[in-house]
Order: sequence, then structure tokens, then C-alpha cells
Amino acid sequence: MRTAYYISDGTAITAEVFGNALLSLFPLQLKHKTIPFVETEEHAYKVLEQISESFQDSGERPLVFYTIVNVDVRKIVSRSVGINYNFLDQFVAPLEKVLGVPSKPEKHRTHSIHETTYDIRIEAVNYALANDDGSNLKEYGNADIILVGVSRSGKTPTSLYLALQYGIKAANYPFTEDDMGDMLKLPPALKRYKDKMFGLTIHPERLHQIRSERRANSRYASMQQCRMELREVENLYRREKIPFLNSTRFSVEEISAKILAETGLQRRKY
Amino acid sequence: MRTAYYISDGTAITAEVFGNALLSLFPLQLKHKTIPFVETEEHAYKVLEQISESFQDSGERPLVFYTIVNVDVRKIVSRSVGINYNFLDQFVAPLEKVLGVPSKPEKHRTHSIHETTYDIRIEAVNYALANDDGSNLKEYGNADIILVGVSRSGKTPTSLYLALQYGIKAANYPFTEDDMGDMLKLPPALKRYKDKMFGLTIHPERLHQIRSERRANSRYASMQQCRMELREVENLYRREKIPFLNSTRFSVEEISAKILAETGLQRRKY
Repeated sequence: MRTAYYISDGTAITAEVFGNALLSLFPLQLKHKTIPFVETEEHAYKVLEQISESFQDSGERPLVFYTIVNVDVRKIVSRSVGINYNFLDQFVAPLEKVLGVPSKPEKHRTHSIHETTYDIRIEAVNYALANDDGSNLKEYGNADIILVGVSRSGKTPTSLYLALQYGIKAANYPFTEDDMGDMLKLPPALKRYKDKMFGLTIHPERLHQIRSERRANSRYASMQQCRMELREVENLYRREKIPFLNSTRFSVEEISAKILAETGLQRRKY
Repeated sequence: MRTAYYISDGTAITAEVFGNALLSLFPLQLKHKTIPFVETEEHAYKVLEQISESFQDSGERPLVFYTIVNVDVRKIVSRSVGINYNFLDQFVAPLEKVLGVPSKPEKHRTHSIHETTYDIRIEAVNYALANDDGSNLKEYGNADIILVGVSRSGKTPTSLYLALQYGIKAANYPFTEDDMGDMLKLPPALKRYKDKMFGLTIHPERLHQIRSERRANSRYASMQQCRMELREVENLYRREKIPFLNSTRFSVEEISAKILAETGLQRRKY
């Protein structure tokens, strides 16, 4: 099997994202291998050997996606026996022309620590944890967004993703059966934060499946219960004009991107 | 100020990562604007208008990074007045030659839901939450890795990042003063999991600063206490041969990439 290498003197996340996006266009199985922090010539020579070996083992030239700031290290990697994609580089000279300024490659550390945004992200993670599952209504005034929905509709992973990727403070509040007497109403303590709310919903079958993995054959996991809870929250969203989306067919990345697009919420980190 | 647009009929994460990496090479301030889920021609025309407006407002041609699977939508966006980078596309034809197979653009949804890996990630997030801060030693047998370190050395954000990005189950265990009598020793319950442990440490000044933001002027936050705790954990790491790294100058992305590189831990999602 052919190997795709993602190599960098940083995290190699950019190379991974670019290479993966490109390779996902092809109906092929590949081995993936990330080699981050290749910061010395010695390390670069070891990488060359590794690439040669996987060529010999598989008989197929590896694909090598790399972004390397250090010129000497980069030169070595660019001599690999693989098919080499220094994919950022070819855009640099044309962009210098457009922008009218020379590039400054020493600044190229997209996934490294940036003091202004770093603390913001960690603070947002701590906020999401402290305000997970309706645990802390007192702090909702500080929320950028409050995700609401029934148990297991995707609130917690989404709030953590929003925090880690974008530095957004997301609280989340679960509507439980206790809130649903005759009809689900917004708990009084939540009402004042209605403008920050974003609802999640999910197909009853999928919810039933997820809940069954946690508590098989429980009332909590039953189709009847799932249907009832979802009907109540969707009615509430419509009645109270809370924007919402159905998370069933979406990844955490997609749910988060949709929330940002729909609410206009500003990320603190790009 | 010039605007950089990141546009896609998916999340636009690939366009953001690529565009950001390229632009980070330039010492310039730009406005960033992501427009995900441009799935209709109507939406594409609205995007064109928006790009025109920001050209008129700033007098500088916007940069437009886009990946769009739908051909009709793509054609419209490619006619924007901005400087258009359909940055994946130029690699496709040469790669088709190399791989000997035609591309299948309908598969291009890198950040969408993949059933096999999706559940794995959510399960890993749930695992990280249930095993945060030493809360659940019973489940350590199921951990892929156990992050150890003093309070506020970066364990929790790292374990959540490992879960969300890679589907890795990371528990984390805080060494507290209670563990440090004369000398910090591995708690007996942890000993059997030593091979899964990875240590974090941090500069005392930085730890003092972080803890002071949480509990100003406390003993917990004092330089003396921070120094003592860090000395004890670093001694323990060396004595027990637990691999470790100093998180002070690294982002969550960098810490995670370093952990994967050093331990050889396999990610469940690429």
C-alpha cells in the first residue's frame, strides 16, 4: 500500500489537512504517516531513509506533503524518493507580488502558541467544563452561546470543540424530563439568556441508538421516550424562536461551522 | 484592510487551514471571513456580492481561498473580483497521473461525519471527561494514554484535544500535595499503568501565573509551592522513566503532536 507522509518542522497539521483534503478526492486506500518537528538535518536524513524504505517495501512511491521553514532541512526533505509536494511554496512568490510585501517565513508557525489567543482557548475549555450539562447557571451571563437540547444530542462535544478551536465560551443545558410536565417550557432561570441559546436536535432513531449504548433497555433509551423528548424540544425551539439544527448527519466540525455561520458568533482565534 | 475569504460547500476548514498557513508567512494584518456551506447558486451569487463590497470598501482586492465540489457553484465563486485560489484543484490532475486513477470529487468531505471514526471520537471525549483529574481510576485499563502532572500543567485541554482530533482515549491524573510526603511516589493504584503514562511539566513562573489567576495569593499559587511540586514530579518522571515534556511554550496542538511522535501512539482518525 502506498504511504502518504506529512512532514514539518512544526506540528505538520497544515500538511495533514492539505494532504488529506487532496487525497480524499481519490478512491484509494493509503497508509498515513505524520512526522512532526523535523528540526535538524540529522532528523531530515532519517526521514529520507524512512521514505526510501516504504518505497522499497511497497514498490509505490510515497507521497510527501511538507511545509518546512528551515531552509537546510527543507532542502534535504525535498530530495526524497517520494513524490514531493512543497505545497505552500508555489503560492508564495505570486502572493508576494499581489500583496507587495516579501514573505517572512520565520513567522510560519500556524499551530504554535500565540499568547493572546492561547489563554483565551484554555479559559474557554475551562468554561465549557464548568458549565457542562447545566451545572452552573450562575455563569451563563459570561457565555458566548448556550447550547440546549436533550441528553445525548451532541451538546458537550460541540461546546468543547468551540472552545478548543475558536476560544468560544459555550455553556450547555440539557432539557430533561423534569422540565417536561404538560409541555416543555424554558426554565425561568434560563429565560433571560434566550438570545444566546442555540438548540440541537437529532433523529429519534439515532438518539435511541446512542442512549441504548449507554443504558440498554432503559426507559431513558426507549424509542417512545426519545420521540417524546425530541417533539417537546423542537416545539419549544419553534415557539420560542430559538435557532436550532439537527445534528444527526453532521460531524462536530460541521455543527460548529453551522452554528458560527447561523449566529454570526465571532471566533476569538482564526 | 484587505479581507481573506475562506469559502466552501463544506465546513471550509481546509480552506481556512491552507489560507491561514500561507498568509501567516506575511507580516500583514488582514480581516478573515469564513463562508461555509455555500451549496446553491443563489448563495454563491450572494458571496460574489459580498466580495465585491469588501473590495469597494477597502480598495484592496480580497483573497479568496475556496474548495467547492459542486461544479456550478464553483464556477460562480471563481468569477469573484478577488484574487481566487482554487488551491486544491491544481494538484488534482498531476496526482491523477501519479496514482493512475481519476479523482472522485463527490467524496470530498474531509470534515464531515464518517461513521466509523465519529463514534470513536465521541466515545473518546466521553472517556476524557469521565477520567478527568483522576476521577475514575477503575477505567484506566481502557486508556490509550494517561497524562500526569501537577494541577494546571495542561493535562485537561490536551486530553480533550487528543479525543476530539484523534479519537484517542486519554485519562489524566493530577499529582497533588497529598501524594508528596517526603518524596513523590507513584500512587499504588497507578503503578500498573506506568507504561501508559506521559508526564507534563511547566516552568514554575508560568505555573505561578496561571494558578494566581485562579486563586490569587494562595499557598497553592505561591512560587515556593509551584517550585516544590514541579521539582517532585520531574524527579519522579526521571526516576520512573516516564517520558515527559515541558508544556510552557507549546500550544495544545504542539503538545499533542509531540506526544504522538514520542510515544508512537496511533490515532484513530486522520
